[in-house]
Amino acid sequence: MEGAVTDGAAPAVEDFFRSRWVEAPAGAEMLSPAQLAPGFRAAGVHCGLKGGGKTDVGLLVCDEPGVRSAVLLTRNAAAAAPVVVCRERCALDAVRAVVVNSGNANAATGEQGIADALAMRDAAAEAVGVAGENVAVAETGVIGVPLDIDAVLRGVREASGRLSPAGGVEFSEAIMTTDRFPKRVTLRLDGVTLSAQAKGAGMIEPGFATMLCFVQTDAVVGDPEAELRRAVAGSFERITVDGQMSTNDTVVLQATGASGKPLPEGLLDAVLLQLALEIVADGEGTERTGRVLVSEAADAEEAERVARAIANSPLVKTALTGRDPNWGRIAQAAGQALAGEEMPEPGPATIDYEELGSDAREAEIGIRLGRGAASAHVYFADLTHEYIRINAEYTT
Amino acid sequence: MEGAVTDGAAPAVEDFFRSRWVEAPAGAEMLSPAQLAPGFRAAGVHCGLKGGGKTDVGLLVCDEPGVRSAVLLTRNAAAAAPVVVCRERCALDAVRAVVVNSGNANAATGEQGIADALAMRDAAAEAVGVAGENVAVAETGVIGVPLDIDAVLRGVREASGRLSPAGGVEFSEAIMTTDRFPKRVTLRLDGVTLSAQAKGAGMIEPGFATMLCFVQTDAVVGDPEAELRRAVAGSFERITVDGQMSTNDTVVLQATGASGKPLPEGLLDAVLLQLALEIVADGEGTERTGRVLVSEAADAEEAERVARAIANSPLVKTALTGRDPNWGRIAQAAGQALAGEEMPEPGPATIDYEELGSDAREAEIGIRLGRGAASAHVYFADLTHEYIRINAEYTT
Repeated sequence: MEGAVTDGAAPAVEDFFRSRWVEAPAGAEMLSPAQLAPGFRAAGVHCGLKGGGKTDVGLLVCDEPGVRSAVLLTRNAAAAAPVVVCRERCALDAVRAVVVNSGNANAATGEQGIADALAMRDAAAEAVGVAGENVAVAETGVIGVPLDIDAVLRGVREASGRLSPAGGVEFSEAIMTTDRFPKRVTLRLDGVTLSAQAKGAGMIEPGFATMLCFVQTDAVVGDPEAELRRAVAGSFERITVDGQMSTNDTVVLQATGASGKPLPEGLLDAVLLQLALEIVADGEGTERTGRVLVSEAADAEEAERVARAIANSPLVKTALTGRDPNWGRIAQAAGQALAGEEMPEPGPATIDYEELGSDAREAEIGIRLGRGAASAHVYFADLTHEYIRINAEYTT
Repeated sequence: MEGAVTDGAAPAVEDFFRSRWVEAPAGAEMLSPAQLAPGFRAAGVHCGLKGGGKTDVGLLVCDEPGVRSAVLLTRNAAAAAPVVVCRERCALDAVRAVVVNSGNANAATGEQGIADALAMRDAAAEAVGVAGENVAVAETGVIGVPLDIDAVLRGVREASGRLSPAGGVEFSEAIMTTDRFPKRVTLRLDGVTLSAQAKGAGMIEPGFATMLCFVQTDAVVGDPEAELRRAVAGSFERITVDGQMSTNDTVVLQATGASGKPLPEGLLDAVLLQLALEIVADGEGTERTGRVLVSEAADAEEAERVARAIANSPLVKTALTGRDPNWGRIAQAAGQALAGEEMPEPGPATIDYEELGSDAREAEIGIRLGRGAASAHVYFADLTHEYIRINAEYTT
């Protein structure tokens, strides 16, 4: 799926909403991803964390003081310094600005890491003229390595001089790590504009899987946290590349309300689901994406548990890679997730496995457990030689 | 580790007990693995399930009517027909004979599968002259494919004519599937003899991971089930190749008591742990085995959960493959297992990661959580290109 949205041109609706599992919002007008929602400016610069002159500091600012926001953070108990700073020192419902570095996750860096994340946050606050608590900070990259804070602070100051309403592409590229392609969109529907930028590709050099996503809109959003939680529950929380939860995952929604119009129903969900699927498709070595639908489970927890067991099974993942319609691996994973329980014997009649063996880039599989009426689905990456190469052959 | 014990000669103690994690029982005398414990006879024949004339039916009989036994079976909810037959139709504490096929797991085969497993069991019972309920049946191989029961029944009859006290090697080879080397031992200590045969290599063509293990002794074992449960809890339940629970796992202990001597303390544990480690070392594509020790956990459940999260993390597994001393991946997996909890930030001071980067065939890693006094350990296989090749490039 590389290369579909790599420059600043407005894509066709079907080029952005290209997954079979996402319903494109009817009537959406696609804009250049460089253009942010009204009231937002952004920039990306190179400070030196990444080689080759690639941009590695992103800055995003909302010019509306009354902006409302929500921030969702990883629950990993070994959360990185920027996550701790956001959680403990940030007004998460009133985020004006976001500062990001790509190249250093600032994770497992102790007290110095916290001090560095705070310094980064405060430099951004000063540069754009807002209070420190109104700035969210996100970082992604190598872990356990002290941040080159002087370089980052220089980058933040430089970025503040480049902030532009057309900075979406620059910002989206400044947050990338091992991503093979950028993930971003700007669109207009029912009188509101929404722009979003995401990154994530499984794992990053050489430490942690991280996904970041930033969403801006001029829509009126009554309860940003509730809206964001619902949309994330159906998107970023439904995907798995390698089953590994990052120390740095961060999702930010900012809504100015300046359009006076509500967020069209389903718009945020569709955008976040497509971006989440882009992350799976860009997973380390991913060749094919699968969706597993578990139905007829006894309850929602059980459906979820079985779906995740199947999605994270290396046997199912490699069957997807090898186009092997091997329903036995689905049955085995389901049986393991239900260890100790009774279930009707799964087999070809209760398992939809044909697309495992097809050439479909997005393969749909399913299993009916015959235990009740609950269901759940999970999107997942396959498991390829390239995953092994990236993760085994790179040595710190 | 291939090739260490491949013929019928008695190995040196240190050649069988070759893992750094197993303490060889002091004073043990190694015998030829062909020789079974007194009172047992076995055979292996080719009936046609496997190609190339390889043996694929094994039969093992105890000539002591008063033999005591214990059988442990997989808890997978999609358990295979032989497991269901053992669980529901077998006197598990009085197993006289064991009949095994390798080549067809007889899993997900419905009512016909149950009928076939019963027919196999009854043919063995008739051939050796014991009641059907005193025969355990085990199968391993392809799944979802009807068993060629006529071939198996011919094999059982042929095997019954070849039963021999020196049939241990034949039997151990007749139960192999994709195993690269046989796993078996016979030894004598403190007046008792113990023989054992195991198989397992991660997953088998093309369906399920399966481990089987059969143990025979002339020792007096007061509570075979308790003895076996304890030894299995410290061995087969402490290993993971790919995190996948089989539909067919079966462990059988038979003890005649004819020696009048008790089982020496620790003997069964050491033998089963070494056999379990042979299965990990023979895992699909395994190059290195790891042991992760989690200590200072809040309680035993937590220690176990964190240890399994680390052992099953594809990032930790590939770091082991790549000899990458990447402690961040251990920290990340521990943090994920403790999601939502508080933990002191893990780092180089609390993680023993050096052996990840060494050439040690068996690498020891550890993490101290700083949350309490509980601990747990898990043995695991790395994740290699060969695993992907075997599981993705084989198409049913």
